[in-house]
Amino acid sequence: MPYFDTASTAPLHPVARQALAAALDEGWADPARLYREGRRAALLLDAAREAAAEAVGCRADELVFTPSGTQAVHSGIAGALAGRRRTGRHLVVSAVEHSSVLHAADVHAAAGGSVAQVPVDRSGTVTAGGYADALTASTALACLQSANHEVGTVQPVAEVADVCAEAGVPLLVDAAQSLGWGPVEGAWSVLAASAHKWGGPPGVGLLAVRKGVRFSPQHPADERESGRSPGFVNLPAAVAAAASLRAVRAEAEAEAARLRVLVDRIRRRVARLVPDVEVVGHPDRRLPHLVTFSCLYVDGETLLHELDKAGYSVSSGSSCTSSTLTPSHVLRAMGVLSEGNVRVSLPPGTTAEDVNGFLEVLPAAVARVRAALGSPEAEPVEPVADSVEVDALGLRCPQPVIELARAVRTVPVGGTVTVVSDDEVARLDVPAWCSLRGHDYLGEEPRPQGTAYTVRRRS
Amino acid sequence: MPYFDTASTAPLHPVARQALAAALDEGWADPARLYREGRRAALLLDAAREAAAEAVGCRADELVFTPSGTQAVHSGIAGALAGRRRTGRHLVVSAVEHSSVLHAADVHAAAGGSVAQVPVDRSGTVTAGGYADALTASTALACLQSANHEVGTVQPVAEVADVCAEAGVPLLVDAAQSLGWGPVEGAWSVLAASAHKWGGPPGVGLLAVRKGVRFSPQHPADERESGRSPGFVNLPAAVAAAASLRAVRAEAEAEAARLRVLVDRIRRRVARLVPDVEVVGHPDRRLPHLVTFSCLYVDGETLLHELDKAGYSVSSGSSCTSSTLTPSHVLRAMGVLSEGNVRVSLPPGTTAEDVNGFLEVLPAAVARVRAALGSPEAEPVEPVADSVEVDALGLRCPQPVIELARAVRTVPVGGTVTVVSDDEVARLDVPAWCSLRGHDYLGEEPRPQGTAYTVRRRS
Repeated sequence: MPYFDTASTAPLHPVARQALAAALDEGWADPARLYREGRRAALLLDAAREAAAEAVGCRADELVFTPSGTQAVHSGIAGALAGRRRTGRHLVVSAVEHSSVLHAADVHAAAGGSVAQVPVDRSGTVTAGGYADALTASTALACLQSANHEVGTVQPVAEVADVCAEAGVPLLVDAAQSLGWGPVEGAWSVLAASAHKWGGPPGVGLLAVRKGVRFSPQHPADERESGRSPGFVNLPAAVAAAASLRAVRAEAEAEAARLRVLVDRIRRRVARLVPDVEVVGHPDRRLPHLVTFSCLYVDGETLLHELDKAGYSVSSGSSCTSSTLTPSHVLRAMGVLSEGNVRVSLPPGTTAEDVNGFLEVLPAAVARVRAALGSPEAEPVEPVADSVEVDALGLRCPQPVIELARAVRTVPVGGTVTVVSDDEVARLDVPAWCSLRGHDYLGEEPRPQGTAYTVRRRS
Repeated sequence: MPYFDTASTAPLHPVARQALAAALDEGWADPARLYREGRRAALLLDAAREAAAEAVGCRADELVFTPSGTQAVHSGIAGALAGRRRTGRHLVVSAVEHSSVLHAADVHAAAGGSVAQVPVDRSGTVTAGGYADALTASTALACLQSANHEVGTVQPVAEVADVCAEAGVPLLVDAAQSLGWGPVEGAWSVLAASAHKWGGPPGVGLLAVRKGVRFSPQHPADERESGRSPGFVNLPAAVAAAASLRAVRAEAEAEAARLRVLVDRIRRRVARLVPDVEVVGHPDRRLPHLVTFSCLYVDGETLLHELDKAGYSVSSGSSCTSSTLTPSHVLRAMGVLSEGNVRVSLPPGTTAEDVNGFLEVLPAAVARVRAALGSPEAEPVEPVADSVEVDALGLRCPQPVIELARAVRTVPVGGTVTVVSDDEVARLDVPAWCSLRGHDYLGEEPRPQGTAYTVRRRS
């Protein structure tokens, strides 16, 4: 049964499993103790740190193991901000960072700090110029992901690092999605990563802080892991993480080339096989194994259920699947359609047959979901008025856009439709729909209830 | 080779190993995902939570898995303090809490909160009255361990919980050392524990927060684990933790009875076999598997090396073994001798032969260390003066006490010896030595360098 959600968590690599079993035997004791079991554990921990540091491209004494990638990000941001408190309390992040980064930024803002978000283009890419514009004399830290977790776009980390270095600002890189594929290029200052994303075990993150970077840990004092990660170190998992990182790196180049061909096929075929679909993310500067597309007039959660029934496990950035009913901040920042969103991230070893099978079931799955919702463009309709207002209050994604699509056919070319919606997603998907369909998006205005979005029919 | 340091970390229980292997197969996916691998993981996580909650004695929705016991303590204290910020910023802890509790209290104090330490008696026990005295109208939280990690003394948690409940103050219990032996009695509000202490895997702590307790998590927002433990949950380890807790509980009563006999033997024999030894901790209200003793005129680190060479892995609260050169805060709070300190904590399955073997090698090991340091009481000496001052500046534990013991023999009964030391441990060990030897401790006074401790010879 093909599992296509490696960007959430990768299946455990066989090397990780072997290393974990061995380290549970040899490395269960406290590495801080002086007796033989402790000394043996300390040797294993040292070796794991050396191996992980080599893969990261840093010194062993710059790297600590944390209990998760999220905690590496939280500790890294808090420690770097505190280390440069005298410089100022300004934090720069991209608009498409992982929620762990944005939530750490929220904590900083709530404590009186300021946060600037660097925008991205429609491919999800930041520019070095965007960072240069955002940096101020009081910027304590800048953060940038190495590659985006939802759309796979690879960021220009080395260029942004240069801009930051010139300004004397440390750059923290969230390398969670890319570290298995290769080291992060450029002069980063702090790096965070997560082992279960590359096939390592859960329970291990990496936090690397370059020598010379001012860093002041913000959690209660704890002498373990250079004072940067409190708690008894999860040694067997750290050993398994390091061993599996080395193993996936050895296979990375060949596997990336292989998966890139399969993802290219998905990108091409989806656009051909599924009507009204938008493939999102950068077409070239992207992770080799990940592709995201959005399907007009589709409820993402229902589509995921359909694909699950057909045997395919994929993920979605659609708000339709989330309990919060807000659209993916990544898709929003990119300004692309969010409804019917599907993220496919292939694990190593995925075959052409797996991908072909997915491409066979996808069009029918999308068609079933659309049929259940009722296609808004099935039959020709005569215009009834020059301008129409549609009450979509209480309707959730993708219904407001479906209502809009139905209504547009009831006005002549040049006529306008205003859809009133209290669904946050409409703010993203109405303009995205206009862009897909070639209509003019005229803007929004607040209403006593919800927001009015107005569109001019162009064809 | 007997490993007698279970209080640091217990060898992995076979059930934990089996459950971990099974959960790595079945529970590797993200339990928040809706596809089949995610649903399977969510079922496993639910079952683990139910099992752990049952063993803790709380509802499943009151319990979350954290990456370590330390983080459960840190998050529990920070969340409970923040939840009652309106009441006040006063925190009450015992003087013998684990360093994770005291370091969280340090953070609270550094942020402007106040902290009161409840004292203990020579057995390491707090009293409910001590807590009653410490609680004020602005007390936000009280913390008490279920049992002490260094000396094994069991605390009167239920009585302290009653006192706290009467004052309307929540009680956080650090149950790290006792949870494998049984649930914590009494009306606690928040409970923290650590799986690797009972034979579960590393990488898992438990944090239980009773319904109705005001609790406000202080880390960046994260929807996992009820918002109380950020990061991808270490599901296989959580499953192994719950399964092994159930397993050790099933064996707890019989194993406690068996180990209690062995520990009683150590307590009796050590006092008989080793001269000038002080067995510390409560003789009855104590953990079944743990015993601590201190040996006069012995360097703890050297003794640990001797015992390690003889095949026994034990731990020490002596400052002599620590990089910080401060004595164990637990032994200091108890007012007992800290030099030559040894903690023996037996894992389940320890045999009488293991213990007998230890008791055979211990006296010779102590004698070797003492011989190397030079016994201060070997031969009779004629008094030379009524009062003597000894310069012990720069000497480290146990040397200042050895110098004192030598000097006392050079004054007549009724004469005084003043030892000047810059070793923090002298503050603890000089009075403890007087108490052991039956001399009068007259007090300390600061000197330009170090501190002067004065003793009157009584016999």
